[in-house]
This record gives sequence, C-alpha cells and structure tokens, in this order.
Amino acid sequence: MSFLQDVVDILLQYVVKSFDRSTKVIDFHYPNELLQEYNWELADQPQTLEEILLNCRTTLKYAIKTGHPRYFNQLSTGLDMVGLAADWLTSAANTNMFTYEIAPVFVLLEYVTLRKMREMVGWPGGCGDGIFSPGGAISNMYAMLIARFKMFPEVKEKGMAAIPRLVAFTSEHSHFSVKKGAAALGIGTDSVILIRLQEEFGLLRSDFAKCFLSATAGTTVYGAFDPLIAIADICKKYKIWMHVDGAWGGGLLMSRKHKWKLNGVERANSVTWNPHKMMGVPLQCSALLVREEGLMQSCNQMHASYLFQQDKHYDLSYDTGDKALQCGRHVDVFKLWLMWRAKGTTGFEAQIDKCLELAEYLYNKIKNREGYEMVFDGKPQHTNVCFWYIPPSLRSMEDNEERMSRLMKVAPVIKARMMEYGTTMVSYQPLGDKVNFFRMVISNPAATHQDIDFLIDEIERLGQDL
Amino acid sequence: MSFLQDVVDILLQYVVKSFDRSTKVIDFHYPNELLQEYNWELADQPQTLEEILLNCRTTLKYAIKTGHPRYFNQLSTGLDMVGLAADWLTSAANTNMFTYEIAPVFVLLEYVTLRKMREMVGWPGGCGDGIFSPGGAISNMYAMLIARFKMFPEVKEKGMAAIPRLVAFTSEHSHFSVKKGAAALGIGTDSVILIRLQEEFGLLRSDFAKCFLSATAGTTVYGAFDPLIAIADICKKYKIWMHVDGAWGGGLLMSRKHKWKLNGVERANSVTWNPHKMMGVPLQCSALLVREEGLMQSCNQMHASYLFQQDKHYDLSYDTGDKALQCGRHVDVFKLWLMWRAKGTTGFEAQIDKCLELAEYLYNKIKNREGYEMVFDGKPQHTNVCFWYIPPSLRSMEDNEERMSRLMKVAPVIKARMMEYGTTMVSYQPLGDKVNFFRMVISNPAATHQDIDFLIDEIERLGQDL
Repeated sequence: MSFLQDVVDILLQYVVKSFDRSTKVIDFHYPNELLQEYNWELADQPQTLEEILLNCRTTLKYAIKTGHPRYFNQLSTGLDMVGLAADWLTSAANTNMFTYEIAPVFVLLEYVTLRKMREMVGWPGGCGDGIFSPGGAISNMYAMLIARFKMFPEVKEKGMAAIPRLVAFTSEHSHFSVKKGAAALGIGTDSVILIRLQEEFGLLRSDFAKCFLSATAGTTVYGAFDPLIAIADICKKYKIWMHVDGAWGGGLLMSRKHKWKLNGVERANSVTWNPHKMMGVPLQCSALLVREEGLMQSCNQMHASYLFQQDKHYDLSYDTGDKALQCGRHVDVFKLWLMWRAKGTTGFEAQIDKCLELAEYLYNKIKNREGYEMVFDGKPQHTNVCFWYIPPSLRSMEDNEERMSRLMKVAPVIKARMMEYGTTMVSYQPLGDKVNFFRMVISNPAATHQDIDFLIDEIERLGQDL
Repeated sequence: MSFLQDVVDILLQYVVKSFDRSTKVIDFHYPNELLQEYNWELADQPQTLEEILLNCRTTLKYAIKTGHPRYFNQLSTGLDMVGLAADWLTSAANTNMFTYEIAPVFVLLEYVTLRKMREMVGWPGGCGDGIFSPGGAISNMYAMLIARFKMFPEVKEKGMAAIPRLVAFTSEHSHFSVKKGAAALGIGTDSVILIRLQEEFGLLRSDFAKCFLSATAGTTVYGAFDPLIAIADICKKYKIWMHVDGAWGGGLLMSRKHKWKLNGVERANSVTWNPHKMMGVPLQCSALLVREEGLMQSCNQMHASYLFQQDKHYDLSYDTGDKALQCGRHVDVFKLWLMWRAKGTTGFEAQIDKCLELAEYLYNKIKNREGYEMVFDGKPQHTNVCFWYIPPSLRSMEDNEERMSRLMKVAPVIKARMMEYGTTMVSYQPLGDKVNFFRMVISNPAATHQDIDFLIDEIERLGQDL
C-alpha cells in the first residue's frame, strides 16, 4: 500500500504540473534518442520497487501533458479530476462488462447513462439500445454492421455471398473509420460513396443495395455539421439506415445554445457520440446509440453458455455482453457517469459553451490579422478553426505554385519547433487541394483567452523567419 | 488534489479489503433492488464533492471484489499492485496510441513488449508485427481479417463480392468470438466449420476457399490445448493461415515447466495472447501477434492525412495507429510492461506455476472424493478443473434422465447461494450433452491451498440439502 501511495504522490505532482503553464507540454525526443535515453527492455529478473518508481517518473517525464492548457493537438484534451478519480476507481474494481453477475453496478450505470444520452438525442423516453465501445471507429463499424443485419438478417449466418451487393454512403469530409469499417465488414472501400450534399445525392442512383448512410455531426478537420434534416428526408425516401457520426459533435447536445446544429439527429437510426472528446471524459469513452431495441442483441449474440447461462437467479436482461462484438469489455461508463453527477448537465453545457466561445475568440482575432488566411469562410460551427499562417516572406508573393509549395512547408516546420520548445501543440494537415494548414481545436476547459493569445504569438514567433 | 487523495484513500481501503478473506466477495442485490437502493440518476445540477465521494463508496460497496482470493468466477481474477499503479499512471497520462507524437513512450513500450512476446512465441528474433487490442475477441477478429487480406488483398477495396466464398475452421471447443468475427466480416457463421481433431480434418474437403484456421491454446471451459504441431502440418499442406487463440493459454509461454503445451505455436501466422487473463494484468490487455511484418498496416491503413502526416520531423514508422481498426486506441501496454519489469519473466513464471499447481491440488482432492464426478478424464492441462458436485440425495440414483434433470439444477442453486452469502464465486455451465457443471479456474496468485479447501467445504455446505 505504501508503494501505491508513492505512485499516487508521483501522479499528483504530475497532474499539478500538467496545469502549470510554465511547464513544457512535451519534452520531445526523437524515437531513437528516447530508446537510448533509458533501458526500457524486459528481463528475466525482477526490479526493486524503487526502480519501479523510477520507471514511472521516467515514463511521465517523456509523456505529453495532455491536460496542459496549451495542448490543442487532438480532439481529446484536458484532464478532469473527477474523471481521473473515476478511472482510478474503475481500475481498482478491475472487472468486465459482460454480465451483471460480475459488474452489477457498472451494468446498471451503463443502462442509466445510455438512456439519458438517448433522451438527449431526442428519442422518445430515451428508448432504444446502445453500448460503450472502444472508440468512435468501432462505434461506427457497429452501426454499419447493425444496419446490414437489419436489411439482410441472413448475412449473419450466410455471409455476404448470400445477399445483394451493398453500397454505403458518407459525406465528403467524414471520418476514415467509415471506410475502415466497410473494408472489415467485407463491403469494400470502393462501395463507400462519398457524397457531396449539394449534388442532391445523385449517386443514390447506384444499383447496389443501399444499406447505410453515415452523416457527420462535427467533421474531424473542419468541425462541420451535415444538414441532418435533409439527410433524414433522403434516408426516409430511399429507406436507408441513417447513422450520425457525432463522435466529435455529439457533445453539443449538452448545450442549449449549440444543439440546434444537430437538429434532425432524432431521426437517425444510430448515433456515435464520444464523451472522451468534447466532454473531456478520460480516454476511452465512446457510445453507440441505436434507436431500435433488441437489434444489437440479435445481430451479435452467440449465446455462449459459459457466460450467459439461462438458469441464473437474476433478471437476465441485465447480462448485456452478448450484444457486443467484444467478449471482455472494459468499464468505460463510470468516468462519464461520475463526471455527469459532479457537473450536472449544466456543468457540461458551461464547459462546452466556453470552448466554443474561445474558438470564436480565436477566429475573430485572426480572421483579418496580417499573416493569416482562413481555410473556410464564416464562423466555425464547432471549435475547429482552420487557418494558414503566412510568414512575412510569402505575404507579397503572387498566388502561384511556388508560393503553394513554400506554404506547404510552413505548418510542419512551426509544428516541429513547437514540439522542440515544448510550448504548445496544434495539429496541421493538407485536405483535398488545400496545402498544410493548422487545425486548432479546443476541448480543454482549462484553456483561457490568454492561452489563445499565447498560441497566436507563438506561431508568429516560430514562423516569422520562414 | 485533496479530492483525488480522498478518492485514493477510499480505493486503498477497498484494495486492502479485497484481500481480506473475512470480507464478502460480493454484497449481492438483484438488479431491481440495486436500482432502488440508491439514486443513480443523472441530473441537470451538480453534486458536491462530498456527494461524489459517497457515489464512489456506494459503487464499491456493491462491486465484486475481483481481487479477492476466493473469487474464481472468470479467467481474469486478482489485483496486482504494480498493475494497478500502472493503470493509474495510464489514466493520468490520458493519451491515445495512434501516433508517436502524442504517445512517445507508450508507442516505444508497445514496440518493446510486443517484440518480447513474439520472441517467447518463438519467432526468430521476435520478428513480426502486432497490436494491443480491446480484448481477445477483437484480436481474433483481427487475425481473421488479416488472413483474408493476405489471401485476397482485393477484398479491401472490392469487398466479398469480388472474391471466392470463404470458409474458416476452428476446433470444437473454441471461443465463440471466432463465429462473431466471421459474422462481422461477412463470412457468415455457417462458413465456420467446427472440426474435431480426431477426424483428421475431413471437412477440409470443402470447396470454398480456405482462408483461416483458428486453433485454441487453452479452451475457455476445459482449458484444453489443441495439438498445434499436427495443425501446423495441416495448415502447411492446405496453405491455410494458422491462427492460435492463446487468449487463455498464452500465459503458459512464461513457464519453462508448462510451455510445451503450446509446442507448434511458433509455426502459427498469428497468435492471440491476453496478459489480462493468466498473467493477472488489469483489464484490458490483449495482444495480437502477427508473424509477417507490414501486413496489418496494408490491411487496415487508410492514410488519414490529419493524423499520419508524411512531412513530420520524426521517423514515421513509429506512427503505428493506421494498422488498427480503431482510430483512438487506449494505452493498454503500460500495465503489462511495468508488471514485467517488477516481476521479471521469472516472477510471471512463478505465479503461473503456482496457479497450475493449485489446480492440480484441487483435482487430486476431488477426483476420488465422495460426491464429485470429473467432467473429463485426466489431469487438467490448464487451471480449469471441471466437475459435478453430486448432493447426497443423488448419489445412489441410477444414471437416468431424472438424475440428469436434477443434477442440472444443482450447480445453479449452489452458485446462487454462493452469491447470496458472498463467500466465493465459481462459474458453471452446460456443454454439449453435459449438464451444468462447475468450471473452477485459478488465475489469482493470492489464492492458496486453504482457499481451495474452503471452496470444497463451501460447495458441500451449500449443496448438501439439494
């Protein structure tokens, strides 16, 4: 126990430092350096507990401080104290979600929490089904799997050979997991048709069986919301399963100010919503919600008699494991549940509204500032703010290929410098015909206006000589 | 911080109690009772930190003490202090495995640990590839996915419609996840052929393309090991991908005394091995190991430009996320790595040997004891000991249908009583033509001979009147 308390002391120090702006976000080392910096190898003989504590300190020394108020690199940032405590409790309870027998409280909390999330989606009385799954990509794959089963239940036994060729649709900037899922399920990536919404779904004329349409509520790079009401109409007309990938945007359902961006989600057949993104729940916490009850169970159940005995002494409807693709399943619900109790819906709302307000602050600061170009017009719909930083040497250049090829190199160099100084981290990427640009996202409620100001100054400091 | 320390104090008390034999394994309540016992609902308004602490205490009050030395219910039992500390550190670091950029240490530790595991499998120099995935079922599904891709790489783009019909093979008592995987991948459960090994794979005469054979090293109920050398010969002859599901049995590779049971595993194309089972690593920790390097990457990659930028300033081979089906991926490696450092390979060996010795002790105690019948002949190969307890009222009965139907009810009633008293927990199930029997498994190094003696006494105490 004193060993555990020693580790806790190390962790508490780390957590405090994570929020300290004078601490580096990262103490960056190249992979080969880091491999040589310390002996990480596994051996036959044990180490002492003193050495184990040193391993912990060393690991944390090189870790990214994802709770740091100037870490903006991913959609999941921040470190919530109640969420962390809940994750620690989950580890100590060390159980598995497949049966009520071994996870009585957690199974009930999953039930309570998923029902509440379905209520917020807008399904009457929170009806339906769902599961916490290991990430949004798996949640999206579940949705596609269930949609296929709903249309052709014989696929479970007979396989794809017994059913018509399928086609799935997704909007242009949707997450790559829709294609990954289609590859895994045997539909094939060529049968995932990227639709531009303004073309009125012309591609819906495909001859293949239309099993699935994934709309995106909050795209990964732009934070854009597909027009869900129009999509719901199309899905209804063509009898297509409507999925909403709200992994990133789902959190806005907690905000009375912003939830209109998801209007129409209540008409979806399934929804992915990752509380580990916009709601700041520790990784991982992703929910798949399904409107029709019982479908997940029929689709995935295999009736393993060693787990789901039919002669147990309690109500077997609480043995929910057979609706999952996984057998063992980590307890991901408790951290969300406990944070929800601690903040209330209104607390989540306040932190989400704050992050969106910060994104608008950033947008307003740079939209007309010298040296910045916005990647898309208009205010951000989510906290994604996409922009190019144009170093002085490029500002007077004509918009030609040379400028493009020089601009392409700006963001990677600034990002590399950010990491070497360890002062902040923001993501960048190319997209379509647009060369590398910064994608700023804000999901950490510890971030402030000063951190946004800092980011702008830092980009200018690191990029002015390029 | 004082809140976090308060939670830690609650958790440390819980952990100490988990190992105390005078504490109940479970304070059992029926689902409806438990729902009413406390207000678990989510509300608009926040609770105080005092209330949050009460939520934690209440959750733990009704949780199963999976670290209790008399909790034998699942393949994953026990609570390792270093593993727990490592999981707490993982939560505090709160990052994602997709890129080196945001998980530098953890990516390297995954590399080091998977290579070590492949060495223990017996692949030269630990060559190959792998990933930690959310549980053995997903690891097995990965293996099937990769095998299909190896045989027909066009399936990724073109789907199952473009390739021949597939058939997969698995041994008789294999885990249900092989079928779940086949259903999900569009192969269909009817195309999973259960083979009896003594029939010399007669079913291999199927006309469909033979893409995959899953052998089991440590079946879930019996703990049996398929003859891997013979299976490797067959797979070689028919050019079938050989997968070994060692989710449960893989741990025996750590034991010089028992690893011969997996002889032939070095000839497999892929291996599932769950350190969260026999090695006592906290949930979840499952590895999929693949002999051919690069195949996982080709099979699953989608080149998302917002994550896997090609112009980063470090060696991109450490951005391993694109080989996963998941996008975000929880850090599951650190708890295994830190435990391995703390115990050394020899420490894992000692705890595994001890669990197998305890299983043999149980087997020797009951094999000729009045009131017990063994389900299969001979010593257990793993820690699974399968037996019927025959109450006095059944002992002199003829072996007829009435006896069967009465015997069928014995284990469920004893199990229900165990849970109501909270004294111990063991699993039971029917299997094939065998009515409900107990499956005892031992994976908790805290268990002792006295706990085995207790279990026998307790079954007799709770079952003698039946």
